[in-house]
Amino acid sequence: MNNKTYRLPKRIDGQKTFNQIIETGKRLFSKQGYAVTSINEIIEEAGIATGTFYLYFDDKLALYSYILLEYHQSIRKHINEKIKHVHTRREKERLGIKAFLQLAWDDRLVYRIIWESMFIDQRLFKTYYTTFSEDYVRGLSHSVINGEVRDDIDLETLSYILMGISNFVGLQVLFGDTLSEQKLDDIVDSVMKVLDSGMFY
Amino acid sequence: MNNKTYRLPKRIDGQKTFNQIIETGKRLFSKQGYAVTSINEIIEEAGIATGTFYLYFDDKLALYSYILLEYHQSIRKHINEKIKHVHTRREKERLGIKAFLQLAWDDRLVYRIIWESMFIDQRLFKTYYTTFSEDYVRGLSHSVINGEVRDDIDLETLSYILMGISNFVGLQVLFGDTLSEQKLDDIVDSVMKVLDSGMFY
Repeated sequence: MNNKTYRLPKRIDGQKTFNQIIETGKRLFSKQGYAVTSINEIIEEAGIATGTFYLYFDDKLALYSYILLEYHQSIRKHINEKIKHVHTRREKERLGIKAFLQLAWDDRLVYRIIWESMFIDQRLFKTYYTTFSEDYVRGLSHSVINGEVRDDIDLETLSYILMGISNFVGLQVLFGDTLSEQKLDDIVDSVMKVLDSGMFY
Repeated sequence: MNNKTYRLPKRIDGQKTFNQIIETGKRLFSKQGYAVTSINEIIEEAGIATGTFYLYFDDKLALYSYILLEYHQSIRKHINEKIKHVHTRREKERLGIKAFLQLAWDDRLVYRIIWESMFIDQRLFKTYYTTFSEDYVRGLSHSVINGEVRDDIDLETLSYILMGISNFVGLQVLFGDTLSEQKLDDIVDSVMKVLDSGMFY
Protein backbone atom coordinates (compact mmCIF):
# COMPACT_ATOMS: atom_id res chain seq x y z
CA MET A 1 0.00 0.00 0.00
CA ASN A 2 2.68 2.44 1.04
CA ASN A 3 6.34 1.61 1.01
CA LYS A 4 8.12 4.87 0.40
CA THR A 5 7.01 7.25 3.12
CA TYR A 6 8.39 5.26 6.06
CA ARG A 7 11.83 3.96 6.93
CA LEU A 8 12.31 0.90 9.15
CA PRO A 9 14.81 1.19 12.00
CA LYS A 10 18.14 -0.57 11.57
CA ARG A 11 19.15 -1.03 15.22
CA ILE A 12 17.51 -2.42 18.33
CA ASP A 13 17.19 0.90 20.17
CA GLY A 14 15.73 2.40 17.00
CA GLN A 15 13.22 -0.47 16.89
CA LYS A 16 12.08 0.38 20.41
CA THR A 17 11.47 4.03 19.50
CA PHE A 18 9.78 2.99 16.25
CA ASN A 19 7.44 0.70 18.20
CA GLN A 20 6.65 3.49 20.66
CA ILE A 21 5.58 5.74 17.79
CA ILE A 22 3.42 2.96 16.29
CA GLU A 23 1.74 2.13 19.60
CA THR A 24 1.08 5.79 20.41
CA GLY A 25 -0.29 6.38 16.91
CA LYS A 26 -2.64 3.39 17.19
CA ARG A 27 -3.86 4.53 20.58
CA LEU A 28 -4.47 8.17 19.64
CA PHE A 29 -5.92 7.51 16.16
CA SER A 30 -8.37 4.97 17.52
CA LYS A 31 -9.25 6.95 20.66
CA GLN A 32 -9.76 10.44 19.28
CA GLY A 33 -9.51 9.96 15.53
CA TYR A 34 -6.91 10.72 12.90
CA ALA A 35 -8.01 14.24 12.04
CA VAL A 36 -7.63 15.73 15.51
CA THR A 37 -4.38 13.90 16.34
CA SER A 38 -1.28 15.99 15.62
CA ILE A 39 2.28 14.79 15.12
CA ASN A 40 3.27 16.94 18.11
CA GLU A 41 0.81 15.05 20.27
CA ILE A 42 2.21 11.70 19.11
CA ILE A 43 5.76 12.89 19.79
CA GLU A 44 4.84 14.12 23.25
CA GLU A 45 2.85 11.01 24.23
CA ALA A 46 5.53 8.68 22.88
CA GLY A 47 8.15 10.59 24.86
CA ILE A 48 10.57 10.99 21.95
CA ALA A 49 12.56 13.88 20.49
CA THR A 50 10.84 15.84 17.73
CA GLY A 51 13.32 14.92 15.01
CA THR A 52 12.98 11.22 15.80
CA PHE A 53 9.49 10.98 14.34
CA TYR A 54 10.74 12.17 10.98
CA LEU A 55 13.58 9.66 10.98
CA TYR A 56 10.95 7.02 10.39
CA PHE A 57 7.90 8.72 8.88
CA ASP A 58 7.42 11.52 6.35
CA ASP A 59 4.23 12.73 7.99
CA LYS A 60 1.07 11.71 9.85
CA LEU A 61 -0.41 9.95 6.81
CA ALA A 62 2.79 7.91 6.45
CA LEU A 63 2.44 6.70 10.04
CA TYR A 64 -1.23 5.88 9.56
CA SER A 65 -0.55 4.04 6.28
CA TYR A 66 2.16 2.01 7.97
CA ILE A 67 -0.19 1.05 10.82
CA LEU A 68 -2.83 -0.02 8.30
CA LEU A 69 -0.30 -2.09 6.35
CA GLU A 70 0.86 -3.70 9.58
CA TYR A 71 -2.73 -4.58 10.51
CA HIS A 72 -3.28 -6.10 7.11
CA GLN A 73 -0.17 -8.24 7.44
CA SER A 74 -0.77 -9.24 11.05
CA ILE A 75 -4.40 -10.26 10.36
CA ARG A 76 -3.27 -12.39 7.42
CA LYS A 77 -0.40 -13.88 9.39
CA HIS A 78 -2.60 -14.63 12.40
CA ILE A 79 -5.20 -16.36 10.22
CA ASN A 80 -2.59 -18.23 8.16
CA GLU A 81 -1.00 -19.56 11.36
CA LYS A 82 -4.36 -20.95 12.44
CA ILE A 83 -5.24 -22.59 9.14
CA LYS A 84 -1.90 -23.93 7.98
CA HIS A 85 -2.41 -27.34 9.59
CA VAL A 86 -5.73 -28.11 7.91
CA HIS A 87 -6.25 -29.23 4.36
CA THR A 88 -9.87 -28.84 3.34
CA ARG A 89 -11.23 -25.48 2.25
CA ARG A 90 -14.10 -25.91 4.66
CA GLU A 91 -11.78 -26.33 7.63
CA LYS A 92 -9.70 -23.37 6.45
CA GLU A 93 -12.81 -21.17 6.33
CA ARG A 94 -13.98 -22.39 9.71
CA LEU A 95 -10.68 -21.78 11.46
CA GLY A 96 -10.08 -18.55 9.53
CA ILE A 97 -13.40 -17.08 10.64
CA LYS A 98 -12.82 -18.21 14.21
CA ALA A 99 -9.34 -16.67 14.21
CA PHE A 100 -10.72 -13.37 12.91
CA LEU A 101 -13.45 -13.27 15.57
CA GLN A 102 -10.92 -13.93 18.31
CA LEU A 103 -8.69 -11.19 16.91
CA ALA A 104 -11.59 -8.72 16.82
CA TRP A 105 -12.30 -9.53 20.46
CA ASP A 106 -8.66 -9.29 21.56
CA ASP A 107 -7.82 -6.08 19.71
CA ARG A 108 -10.75 -3.74 19.78
CA LEU A 109 -8.85 -1.13 17.83
CA VAL A 110 -8.84 -3.19 14.65
CA TYR A 111 -12.14 -1.92 13.21
CA ARG A 112 -11.51 1.66 14.22
CA ILE A 113 -8.09 1.79 12.61
CA ILE A 114 -9.18 0.08 9.40
CA TRP A 115 -12.56 1.77 8.92
CA GLU A 116 -11.13 5.20 9.65
CA SER A 117 -9.15 4.84 6.41
CA MET A 118 -12.43 5.59 4.65
CA PHE A 119 -12.24 9.12 6.05
CA ILE A 120 -8.52 9.63 5.67
CA ASP A 121 -8.04 8.50 2.11
CA GLN A 122 -10.66 6.54 0.12
CA ARG A 123 -7.90 4.88 -1.89
CA LEU A 124 -6.34 3.42 1.26
CA PHE A 125 -9.71 1.99 2.28
CA LYS A 126 -10.35 0.57 -1.18
CA THR A 127 -6.85 -0.88 -1.45
CA TYR A 128 -7.19 -2.50 1.96
CA TYR A 129 -10.28 -4.50 1.00
CA THR A 130 -9.57 -5.10 -2.67
CA THR A 131 -6.17 -6.58 -1.74
CA PHE A 132 -7.85 -8.87 0.80
CA SER A 133 -10.44 -9.79 -1.83
CA GLU A 134 -7.80 -10.62 -4.45
CA ASP A 135 -5.96 -12.91 -2.02
CA TYR A 136 -9.22 -14.58 -1.16
CA VAL A 137 -10.15 -15.09 -4.82
CA ARG A 138 -6.77 -16.71 -5.46
CA GLY A 139 -7.36 -19.22 -2.65
CA LEU A 140 -10.96 -19.87 -3.63
CA SER A 141 -9.97 -20.49 -7.27
CA HIS A 142 -7.79 -23.39 -6.17
CA SER A 143 -10.70 -24.79 -4.19
CA VAL A 144 -12.99 -24.55 -7.21
CA ILE A 145 -10.42 -26.49 -9.26
CA ASN A 146 -10.12 -29.04 -6.45
CA GLY A 147 -13.87 -29.43 -6.52
CA GLU A 148 -14.34 -28.22 -2.94
CA VAL A 149 -16.14 -24.97 -3.77
CA ARG A 150 -18.99 -24.75 -6.26
CA ASP A 151 -18.06 -23.31 -9.63
CA ASP A 152 -21.20 -21.29 -10.33
CA ILE A 153 -20.61 -18.39 -7.91
CA ASP A 154 -18.61 -15.31 -8.90
CA LEU A 155 -15.55 -15.55 -6.67
CA GLU A 156 -15.08 -11.81 -6.20
CA THR A 157 -18.62 -11.61 -4.84
CA LEU A 158 -17.97 -14.70 -2.70
CA SER A 159 -14.87 -13.04 -1.24
CA TYR A 160 -16.91 -10.00 -0.18
CA ILE A 161 -19.62 -12.28 1.23
CA LEU A 162 -17.01 -14.05 3.37
CA MET A 163 -15.32 -10.81 4.47
CA GLY A 164 -18.72 -9.33 5.30
CA ILE A 165 -19.66 -12.34 7.40
CA SER A 166 -16.38 -12.25 9.37
CA ASN A 167 -16.51 -8.51 9.90
CA PHE A 168 -20.14 -8.31 10.98
CA VAL A 169 -20.20 -11.46 13.08
CA GLY A 170 -17.07 -9.87 14.56
CA LEU A 171 -19.24 -6.88 15.52
CA GLN A 172 -21.75 -9.26 17.12
CA VAL A 173 -18.87 -10.65 19.20
CA LEU A 174 -17.64 -7.15 20.11
CA PHE A 175 -21.12 -6.01 21.14
CA GLY A 176 -21.35 -8.88 23.63
CA ASP A 177 -20.05 -8.49 27.17
CA THR A 178 -18.21 -11.78 27.35
CA LEU A 179 -16.65 -14.30 24.99
CA SER A 180 -16.05 -17.93 25.89
CA GLU A 181 -14.57 -20.66 23.73
CA GLN A 182 -18.02 -22.28 23.72
CA LYS A 183 -19.78 -19.10 22.59
CA LEU A 184 -17.18 -18.59 19.86
CA ASP A 185 -17.66 -22.16 18.63
CA ASP A 186 -21.45 -21.79 18.63
CA ILE A 187 -21.24 -18.63 16.52
CA VAL A 188 -18.81 -20.23 14.08
CA ASP A 189 -21.09 -23.30 13.85
CA SER A 190 -23.99 -21.07 12.80
CA VAL A 191 -21.84 -19.44 10.14
CA MET A 192 -20.71 -22.83 8.84
CA LYS A 193 -24.30 -24.05 8.55
CA VAL A 194 -25.02 -21.18 6.16
CA LEU A 195 -21.80 -21.80 4.23
CA ASP A 196 -22.53 -25.54 4.12
CA SER A 197 -26.10 -25.47 2.99
CA GLY A 198 -27.67 -22.02 3.12
CA MET A 199 -30.38 -20.56 5.32
CA PHE A 200 -33.60 -21.58 3.56
CA TYR A 201 -35.54 -24.82 3.73
CA MET B 1 -31.68 6.50 19.52
CA ASN B 2 -31.96 10.16 20.42
CA ASN B 3 -35.25 11.97 20.72
CA LYS B 4 -34.61 14.73 23.20
CA THR B 5 -31.76 16.76 21.80
CA TYR B 6 -33.48 17.89 18.60
CA ARG B 7 -36.72 19.70 17.89
CA LEU B 8 -38.59 19.25 14.60
CA PRO B 9 -39.76 22.40 12.81
CA LYS B 10 -43.45 23.22 12.97
CA ARG B 11 -43.80 25.34 9.83
CA ILE B 12 -42.84 25.03 6.18
CA ASP B 13 -40.16 27.74 6.20
CA GLY B 14 -38.71 26.14 9.33
CA GLN B 15 -38.64 22.80 7.52
CA LYS B 16 -36.59 24.34 4.74
CA THR B 17 -34.01 25.70 7.19
CA PHE B 18 -34.00 22.41 9.09
CA ASN B 19 -33.31 20.51 5.86
CA GLN B 20 -30.49 22.91 4.99
CA ILE B 21 -28.83 22.17 8.32
CA ILE B 22 -29.22 18.41 7.79
CA GLU B 23 -27.85 18.49 4.24
CA THR B 24 -24.91 20.68 5.24
CA GLY B 25 -24.16 18.44 8.22
CA LYS B 26 -24.23 15.30 6.05
CA ARG B 27 -21.94 16.88 3.50
CA LEU B 28 -19.38 18.23 5.98
CA PHE B 29 -19.36 15.20 8.31
CA SER B 30 -18.86 12.80 5.43
CA LYS B 31 -16.37 14.97 3.57
CA GLN B 32 -14.04 16.08 6.34
CA GLY B 33 -15.24 14.11 9.36
CA TYR B 34 -17.22 14.90 12.46
CA ALA B 35 -14.33 15.91 14.71
CA VAL B 36 -13.02 18.76 12.58
CA THR B 37 -16.46 20.11 11.61
CA SER B 38 -17.62 22.96 13.84
CA ILE B 39 -21.14 24.24 14.39
CA ASN B 40 -19.98 27.63 13.09
CA GLU B 41 -18.89 26.02 9.84
CA ILE B 42 -22.27 24.32 9.48
CA ILE B 43 -24.08 27.60 10.17
CA GLU B 44 -21.95 29.45 7.67
CA GLU B 45 -22.22 26.81 4.91
CA ALA B 46 -25.96 26.44 5.45
CA GLY B 47 -26.34 30.22 5.22
CA ILE B 48 -28.47 30.54 8.35
CA ALA B 49 -28.44 32.79 11.40
CA THR B 50 -26.44 31.54 14.38
CA GLY B 51 -29.40 31.19 16.71
CA THR B 52 -31.32 29.18 14.15
CA PHE B 53 -29.12 26.11 14.60
CA TYR B 54 -29.97 25.95 18.29
CA LEU B 55 -33.69 26.24 17.60
CA TYR B 56 -33.48 22.69 16.27
CA PHE B 57 -30.40 21.07 17.80
CA ASP B 58 -28.77 21.18 21.23
CA ASP B 59 -25.28 20.70 19.82
CA LYS B 60 -23.19 19.03 17.11
CA LEU B 61 -23.75 15.55 18.53
CA ALA B 62 -27.52 16.15 18.47
CA LEU B 63 -27.32 16.97 14.76
CA TYR B 64 -25.17 13.92 14.04
CA SER B 65 -27.47 11.62 16.05
CA TYR B 66 -30.46 12.95 14.15
CA ILE B 67 -28.75 12.31 10.80
CA LEU B 68 -27.90 8.75 11.89
CA LEU B 69 -31.48 8.13 13.01
CA GLU B 70 -32.75 9.49 9.71
CA TYR B 71 -30.42 7.16 7.79
CA HIS B 72 -31.62 4.22 9.83
CA GLN B 73 -35.24 5.06 9.10
CA SER B 74 -34.72 5.86 5.42
CA ILE B 75 -32.78 2.63 4.80
CA ARG B 76 -35.53 0.58 6.46
CA LYS B 77 -38.24 2.48 4.61
CA HIS B 78 -36.47 2.13 1.26
CA ILE B 79 -36.03 -1.62 1.78
CA ASN B 80 -39.57 -2.11 3.10
CA GLU B 81 -40.98 -0.34 0.04
CA LYS B 82 -39.13 -2.76 -2.22
CA ILE B 83 -40.14 -5.92 -0.38
CA LYS B 84 -43.73 -5.20 0.59
CA HIS B 85 -45.19 -6.78 -2.54
CA VAL B 86 -43.49 -10.16 -2.13
CA HIS B 87 -44.48 -12.90 0.23
CA THR B 88 -41.72 -15.46 0.58
CA ARG B 89 -38.78 -14.82 2.89
CA ARG B 90 -36.42 -15.70 0.08
CA GLU B 91 -37.87 -13.04 -2.22
CA LYS B 92 -37.79 -10.53 0.64
CA GLU B 93 -34.09 -11.23 1.23
CA ARG B 94 -33.32 -11.04 -2.46
CA LEU B 95 -35.08 -7.73 -3.02
CA GLY B 96 -33.87 -6.37 0.32
CA ILE B 97 -30.23 -7.03 -0.54
CA LYS B 98 -30.71 -5.59 -4.01
CA ALA B 99 -32.34 -2.47 -2.58
CA PHE B 100 -29.48 -1.99 -0.12
CA LEU B 101 -26.85 -2.35 -2.86
CA GLN B 102 -28.65 0.20 -5.03
CA LEU B 103 -28.86 2.56 -2.06
CA ALA B 104 -25.14 2.18 -1.32
CA TRP B 105 -24.42 3.04 -4.96
CA ASP B 106 -26.79 6.02 -5.07
CA ASP B 107 -25.76 7.57 -1.75
CA ARG B 108 -22.06 7.15 -1.24
CA LEU B 109 -22.22 8.99 2.07
CA VAL B 110 -24.15 6.19 3.77
CA TYR B 111 -21.15 4.16 4.98
CA ARG B 112 -19.18 7.21 6.00
CA ILE B 113 -21.98 8.65 8.09
CA ILE B 114 -22.85 5.34 9.77
CA TRP B 115 -19.35 4.01 10.33
CA GLU B 116 -18.13 7.33 11.67
CA SER B 117 -20.45 6.78 14.64
CA MET B 118 -17.84 4.28 15.86
CA PHE B 119 -15.51 7.23 16.43
CA ILE B 120 -18.05 9.69 17.74
CA ASP B 121 -19.80 7.54 20.31
CA GLN B 122 -19.44 3.76 20.50
CA ARG B 123 -22.95 3.50 21.94
CA LEU B 124 -24.45 5.15 18.86
CA PHE B 125 -22.61 2.67 16.64
CA LYS B 126 -23.68 -0.29 18.75
CA THR B 127 -27.29 0.91 18.95
CA TYR B 128 -27.40 1.39 15.20
CA TYR B 129 -26.51 -2.22 14.43
CA THR B 130 -28.14 -3.95 17.40
CA THR B 131 -31.44 -2.24 16.54
CA PHE B 132 -31.14 -3.42 12.94
CA SER B 133 -30.28 -6.89 14.22
CA GLU B 134 -33.30 -7.02 16.55
CA ASP B 135 -35.66 -6.03 13.72
CA TYR B 136 -34.08 -8.67 11.53
CA VAL B 137 -34.40 -11.37 14.21
CA ARG B 138 -38.09 -10.54 14.62
CA GLY B 139 -38.70 -11.01 10.91
CA LEU B 140 -36.58 -14.17 10.71
CA SER B 141 -38.41 -15.70 13.69
CA HIS B 142 -41.68 -15.53 11.75
CA SER B 143 -40.00 -17.24 8.80
CA VAL B 144 -38.70 -20.01 11.06
CA ILE B 145 -42.24 -20.56 12.35
CA ASN B 146 -43.55 -20.53 8.77
CA GLY B 147 -40.99 -23.16 7.91
CA GLU B 148 -39.20 -20.97 5.37
CA VAL B 149 -35.95 -20.56 7.31
CA ARG B 150 -34.14 -23.45 8.99
CA ASP B 151 -34.58 -23.64 12.73
CA ASP B 152 -31.08 -24.76 13.70
CA ILE B 153 -29.22 -21.46 13.20
CA ASP B 154 -28.97 -18.84 15.92
CA LEU B 155 -30.99 -15.95 14.51
CA GLU B 156 -28.90 -13.19 16.04
CA THR B 157 -25.85 -14.62 14.29
CA LEU B 158 -27.87 -15.03 11.09
CA SER B 159 -28.89 -11.36 11.27
CA TYR B 160 -25.22 -10.29 11.46
CA ILE B 161 -24.36 -12.69 8.62
CA LEU B 162 -27.01 -11.05 6.45
CA MET B 163 -26.05 -7.49 7.42
CA GLY B 164 -22.39 -8.36 6.78
CA ILE B 165 -23.17 -9.72 3.34
CA SER B 166 -25.21 -6.63 2.35
CA ASN B 167 -22.65 -4.19 3.70
CA PHE B 168 -19.59 -5.83 2.18
CA VAL B 169 -21.11 -6.74 -1.16
CA GLY B 170 -22.18 -3.08 -1.02
CA LEU B 171 -18.49 -2.18 -0.81
CA GLN B 172 -17.78 -4.40 -3.81
CA VAL B 173 -20.42 -2.42 -5.71
CA LEU B 174 -18.98 0.92 -4.54
CA PHE B 175 -15.43 -0.07 -5.51
CA GLY B 176 -16.59 -0.75 -9.07
CA ASP B 177 -16.63 2.05 -11.64
CA THR B 178 -20.05 1.31 -13.05
CA LEU B 179 -23.27 -0.37 -11.99
CA SER B 180 -25.84 -1.74 -14.42
CA GLU B 181 -29.08 -3.51 -13.63
CA GLN B 182 -27.52 -6.66 -15.09
CA LYS B 183 -24.42 -6.41 -12.89
CA LEU B 184 -26.57 -5.80 -9.83
CA ASP B 185 -28.69 -8.86 -10.62
CA ASP B 186 -25.61 -11.02 -11.19
CA ILE B 187 -24.18 -10.01 -7.81
CA VAL B 188 -27.50 -10.65 -6.04
CA ASP B 189 -27.75 -14.04 -7.80
CA SER B 190 -24.37 -15.04 -6.36
CA VAL B 191 -25.48 -14.01 -2.89
CA MET B 192 -28.71 -15.98 -3.22
CA LYS B 193 -26.84 -19.11 -4.27
CA VAL B 194 -24.95 -19.01 -0.98
CA LEU B 195 -28.15 -18.31 0.99
CA ASP B 196 -29.97 -21.07 -0.91
CA SER B 197 -27.47 -23.82 -0.59
CA GLY B 198 -24.07 -22.68 0.68
CA MET B 199 -20.70 -22.42 -0.99
CA PHE B 200 -19.29 -25.93 -0.63
CA TYR B 201 -19.83 -29.02 -2.75
